[in-house]
Amino acid sequence: MLMKYRLFTPGPTSVPEATLLELAKPVRHHRTGEFRSMFKEVQTLLQYVYQTTSTVYTITGSGTAAAEAGIINTIAPGQKVLNVSNGKFAERWAQVCKTYGIDVKELKLEYGQHATADQIAQELKSTHYDAVILVHSETSTATTCDLEAIGKAVRASGDTLLIVDGITSIGAMPFKMDQWGVDVAITGSQKALMLPPGLAFVALSDRAWAAVEKNKARQDFYLDLKKYKKSLVDGDTPYTPANTLIEALRVSLKMVKEETIETVWKRTHTVAESFRQGMKALGFELFSNQPADSVSAIRYPQGIVDKEFRGLLKSKHNIHIAGGQGTMEGQIFRVNHMGYTDAYDALAVVAAIEHVMKALGKPIQFGAGVAAAQQTLSVLF
Amino acid sequence: MLMKYRLFTPGPTSVPEATLLELAKPVRHHRTGEFRSMFKEVQTLLQYVYQTTSTVYTITGSGTAAAEAGIINTIAPGQKVLNVSNGKFAERWAQVCKTYGIDVKELKLEYGQHATADQIAQELKSTHYDAVILVHSETSTATTCDLEAIGKAVRASGDTLLIVDGITSIGAMPFKMDQWGVDVAITGSQKALMLPPGLAFVALSDRAWAAVEKNKARQDFYLDLKKYKKSLVDGDTPYTPANTLIEALRVSLKMVKEETIETVWKRTHTVAESFRQGMKALGFELFSNQPADSVSAIRYPQGIVDKEFRGLLKSKHNIHIAGGQGTMEGQIFRVNHMGYTDAYDALAVVAAIEHVMKALGKPIQFGAGVAAAQQTLSVLF
Repeated sequence: MLMKYRLFTPGPTSVPEATLLELAKPVRHHRTGEFRSMFKEVQTLLQYVYQTTSTVYTITGSGTAAAEAGIINTIAPGQKVLNVSNGKFAERWAQVCKTYGIDVKELKLEYGQHATADQIAQELKSTHYDAVILVHSETSTATTCDLEAIGKAVRASGDTLLIVDGITSIGAMPFKMDQWGVDVAITGSQKALMLPPGLAFVALSDRAWAAVEKNKARQDFYLDLKKYKKSLVDGDTPYTPANTLIEALRVSLKMVKEETIETVWKRTHTVAESFRQGMKALGFELFSNQPADSVSAIRYPQGIVDKEFRGLLKSKHNIHIAGGQGTMEGQIFRVNHMGYTDAYDALAVVAAIEHVMKALGKPIQFGAGVAAAQQTLSVLF
Repeated sequence: MLMKYRLFTPGPTSVPEATLLELAKPVRHHRTGEFRSMFKEVQTLLQYVYQTTSTVYTITGSGTAAAEAGIINTIAPGQKVLNVSNGKFAERWAQVCKTYGIDVKELKLEYGQHATADQIAQELKSTHYDAVILVHSETSTATTCDLEAIGKAVRASGDTLLIVDGITSIGAMPFKMDQWGVDVAITGSQKALMLPPGLAFVALSDRAWAAVEKNKARQDFYLDLKKYKKSLVDGDTPYTPANTLIEALRVSLKMVKEETIETVWKRTHTVAESFRQGMKALGFELFSNQPADSVSAIRYPQGIVDKEFRGLLKSKHNIHIAGGQGTMEGQIFRVNHMGYTDAYDALAVVAAIEHVMKALGKPIQFGAGVAAAQQTLSVLF
């Protein structure tokens, strides 16, 4: 029986029809004035989304490529980094540091917990770090943190750089690169930017560029940001870019600009909050003590088997959500709210979860979660 | 703020992505072996949807063109027709008859009422009619009738033809042309067949073709079905067909075949019934005494202004539904369930109506309608 495919993983996320149509257009060459002028417009739009006057560089690759570029270009082997580690992605950035001989100290937190500005200020008081690496929205645990306060604390400490993984925050949650003192800001195309996977982005503050210039210890090639900076003088990328994705990105980012970034933040927040209220009304618990608006992580109640729950959602409802990663597997499920997602998308997932819980023999009242979600959504109408 | 466009008018209806992609392919010429072989496959698929061994002819035009063709090819000026008139579309077919000098007797029913087989049998007993014209699913009032019983009654009466407007029934509700004794069956592309407007279809039984052969009183050109029959001997259409729409139709009809027509009927019924239950739970009344599954017509409660209600649905929720036609304007609203529509589409409309009623100051309990709809939908999961 026809049941439309509904994608609610925290990346890839749904792509707007207008963007898909752009992707269906014939391929053009990228070493042309047309490409450069289009690419320039994309950069301006990216600066708007990042809330920065710094250049946002486009890397053809995944978010990991952009994060690696952001870290290894600014931090030399042997330099000292504080990595706030509260999830699978934070752990990955520690691995990147170790791979390159960067001296990484991990500020370990339980999964689902977040670091406060005070904790970070304390760490920076006791030791000098060349950089703090922080995940603004930890996708694996659906946890955010007070980036504005942390940014203030890091700047107050002196010359320590603040490197932020904004992969599931930029374009979804309030993020103000310049105002909040972020030195390196990273994101990917398949999250809030409403594009398929394939592009990643990194912007560096002047302080970060100064660090890049001083970093002579190691030469990289594909991820050498100096090459990106140099090529951009002529409006180009150093290597063949995924140019049809960039053309499509323009369409998605123009939609963001038209909706305004503040409205996108508000929508994402309202949709996320309605989902959380729906889940709470059904007796579920959030996994995080500081839930991100981009993605929700919900604890499975006793007796609910992840594979069965998500299996039913997929097989009976054609709704694709994510499970937990690593040790969180089987403990939580995760639902996206970023990007091309609206109020009725959120309601569909809540209603489907009611059906699945009922099918699993749980005493669910149809509409109970939906009603709570509607209550939250009603501020929109 | 981003709110996805959701189309719930009873035509045009949503078109599947795969069909839209087919429409985006380059235009090919239609006087080719490739076109003929593709068109042949489409005819077989149309026969499956019609449940007939008769040829289903494709006319480039609206449903009205196919209905006019079905009527004027089989019924000569001066011949006698019983037109079951219970809505705006039935009234249109009476107009067609009058335009061509066909002697039409109208079996007038209140809007929202349906004719029974007994009523029609009575009429056929008192007078000889050359044909009965019947709307199987009257889109203007969302009313169906027992076509199987009526077909039996008409056949029992002798040589009277049964001409059926199946524009919003074929492909949505059980319809068995051959088994139920339908002589002329008409539909359009933009209803249950999951295509944009532009194509219409008509199939004739052997009895109907015999009537066409006898009908010498008048010659038509574009709508002359003998021309369509003759061209089809070579696999062609008599005039340039909307060939990209026909290629796209293949995609949509293959989806129907894969889902099976019986499952499509069941899905449409369940989605419609869930919507009706949702509306009843919110205190609304159905307009029809024999509701069709393809479209629902709901009476406005006292004090709800059509323009305001549908205006809010469109402006705040981006949901497009239909109002009433003619004297029903302001009295009812209509919501589609045909074609590319699933359980969560229906829930979205119910939830949105809850929001709108609340915004209009009505004492609506969020989730009350949704819960009733979910109860019905749960047979699917």
